[in-house]
Amino acid sequence: MAIITLTTDFGLKDHFSGTLKGAIYKELPDAKIVDISHQISPFNIHECAYILENSYKNFPEGSIHIVGVDAEPTQENQHIAVLVDGHYFITANTGVIGLITSELKPEKAVEIHLPNVTSGPFPTRDILVQVACHIARGGTLEVVGKPFDQLKELRDFSPRTNENGKKITGSVIYIDNYGNVVTNIHKKFFLGYRKGRDFEIQARTTKLKEIHDNYSDIINFDLDKNRRKGAGDLLAIFNSSGYIELAIYKSNLSTVGGASTLLGLDYRDTVIINFL
Amino acid sequence: MAIITLTTDFGLKDHFSGTLKGAIYKELPDAKIVDISHQISPFNIHECAYILENSYKNFPEGSIHIVGVDAEPTQENQHIAVLVDGHYFITANTGVIGLITSELKPEKAVEIHLPNVTSGPFPTRDILVQVACHIARGGTLEVVGKPFDQLKELRDFSPRTNENGKKITGSVIYIDNYGNVVTNIHKKFFLGYRKGRDFEIQARTTKLKEIHDNYSDIINFDLDKNRRKGAGDLLAIFNSSGYIELAIYKSNLSTVGGASTLLGLDYRDTVIINFL
Amino acid sequence: MAIITLTTDFGLKDHFSGTLKGAIYKELPDAKIVDISHQISPFNIHECAYILENSYKNFPEGSIHIVGVDAEPTQENQHIAVLVDGHYFITANTGVIGLITSELKPEKAVEIHLPNVTSGPFPTRDILVQVACHIARGGTLEVVGKPFDQLKELRDFSPRTNENGKKITGSVIYIDNYGNVVTNIHKKFFLGYRKGRDFEIQARTTKLKEIHDNYSDIINFDLDKNRRKGAGDLLAIFNSSGYIELAIYKSNLSTVGGASTLLGLDYRDTVIINFL
Repeated sequence: MAIITLTTDFGLKDHFSGTLKGAIYKELPDAKIVDISHQISPFNIHECAYILENSYKNFPEGSIHIVGVDAEPTQENQHIAVLVDGHYFITANTGVIGLITSELKPEKAVEIHLPNVTSGPFPTRDILVQVACHIARGGTLEVVGKPFDQLKELRDFSPRTNENGKKITGSVIYIDNYGNVVTNIHKKFFLGYRKGRDFEIQARTTKLKEIHDNYSDIINFDLDKNRRKGAGDLLAIFNSSGYIELAIYKSNLSTVGGASTLLGLDYRDTVIINFL
Repeated sequence: MAIITLTTDFGLKDHFSGTLKGAIYKELPDAKIVDISHQISPFNIHECAYILENSYKNFPEGSIHIVGVDAEPTQENQHIAVLVDGHYFITANTGVIGLITSELKPEKAVEIHLPNVTSGPFPTRDILVQVACHIARGGTLEVVGKPFDQLKELRDFSPRTNENGKKITGSVIYIDNYGNVVTNIHKKFFLGYRKGRDFEIQARTTKLKEIHDNYSDIINFDLDKNRRKGAGDLLAIFNSSGYIELAIYKSNLSTVGGASTLLGLDYRDTVIINFL
Repeated sequence: MAIITLTTDFGLKDHFSGTLKGAIYKELPDAKIVDISHQISPFNIHECAYILENSYKNFPEGSIHIVGVDAEPTQENQHIAVLVDGHYFITANTGVIGLITSELKPEKAVEIHLPNVTSGPFPTRDILVQVACHIARGGTLEVVGKPFDQLKELRDFSPRTNENGKKITGSVIYIDNYGNVVTNIHKKFFLGYRKGRDFEIQARTTKLKEIHDNYSDIINFDLDKNRRKGAGDLLAIFNSSGYIELAIYKSNLSTVGGASTLLGLDYRDTVIINFL
């Protein structure tokens, strides 16, 4: 039985996330359900896409991802089900699919039409769950809708390069639980543009000349514990999703602060890489 | 195997919610466990009832709901197990059952008595989990206690109507993750009293003359995106649980605010409907 | 199939906890996964140990506990897998194992070495999950590493007793969801030292002369509800983990406050027991 994942902005206090699971089990007593996140900022499609992009690939092929963020269908945002990269995504046509799989072509996409279902203010339960259960039972996309190729495209804040080839201008796309600052500059993009040159990452007045592979890379373990710098120092790293991230080794937002507070960087702020 | 759901005020940081699941799996290796919410406000029976009332019906009949809110047994709040509306509820006699299923008669109710179990400060694990597992294994209520018909009744903040038939006085029973304000006025109650008349919902100084079925109903999609009102405007809606809710389309409590902050409405505040 | 539990400081918003589950299901389609907590304070090994110590014993023997707190391997903190008290723990050698099972001797311990795996900034997924799945499939520890007996020891803030035998000096090790203050003084330790004497617990200027077994023990149910003291009063209790806890019956941190706010006690503060 395929896994059904849930990504929503419902929070964890309200009854919504539990209700979704009840509705799924009612249809599919043997369902396997996994929460990816219920704490997407309300209606924030870009944040939803970042989280889902970095999570879905870790699931088995054939997994079914319900995306309950801004999922009320309107004449502009129809409900859709899309098979792309071997995974099913079921959501409204908000642009989230394009952000998640920007370099991939969907294998199949349908606009959902369930003739016998009336939906109201809880379409994630009333429509998306039904479609997910249909697919989990082995049903085809064709049964739940008609082919569709109008995936909404959102500006996805790709990094820009300048004409003389000496600069990448990126921006902050996510700040994680540790206060680490994730930029939209991917390792592949960076390496392709770098061509072996030296560089300097600039985030406000802070400059960094190296990108590490592990958070602890900046610790000198040969020194006595009390003389080591490191904990509390800033570093750049390729994070587990491949993006350049500005991080503090062992940061804690609620005590010593994180990279975001140290640098004064927020969602959408600019991070520049200059090549020398 | 029946589903066992968990609704508690334990929060998600402490070990309690994980511990409950460990204890259930120890008894029942094939258990299916679903979290409804662990973020009920501590000891808040009314909030617990609102969340559970709106969630339990989505689960298959025969589901077993452990309610770990104010669950320490006292001489006034005995542990009880109740079968009502095809679902099992296992909790202390706090009044929560009556609030959840106010219009239904329990099919069976027992006061729990487990002769060989000593409980301490964690009765949800020591008693309620044991009873849930017993029922999930197909056991009967009679084995875990003696028949009982003294369900505690709590004042449940039902809406009041006035003598001349022109007014419903309701109150706020819940504020959800989006800041939307849920009243205790149910669609069925409202329609039965309305009898086709025009009306005006009054929440402090704000007045609304319509109740919608979808959050996006107030958007005029014929207008250009920048000229549309809607996002940020207030509407009344029958929410997915059937209650009249005052909402903002695409609100966000941590940025633009929600209906609760816009209206200055809090839990227990008054919302009035005047009929014309 | 053995249960795999997750205890991390990832929080619940980021994709990390969902990603772990995807990675486990990819390896083991029939895995049973339980969240213990994802809200450990970042890098806080002592807090992690308190939560895990009190939760793991409730799981069936043979359960596999992934501990993703400060789990990046360094030359000082190798990845280890330890079988102790019938449970498997997979983590970095941060000292957490010694804190969790301070009085027990590991049955087996290996330093993890997976020749074909390269890890990066997400070692909990890349290494710890792989080892957990190996064990869940019935694999042995010997296959994933070489024997190891250098478990790091952290000072674990054990309570101290003074020379004349009249005082225990303990400290606060945890503050729970209700604001209740958990000390490091265990019932067994207390009773062994007390030898029947009268005592007085001193927390700042507050003194308590009794330790209860239930939170409601201080309520006099013979009095009319309005004349009872109790709700809002402080008591000492042996909590469900056996530690002496200073609690308020029906406290609520976000409204009336909890014992921690009433007493002005924080993590690591001192609590003294004087024997008379």
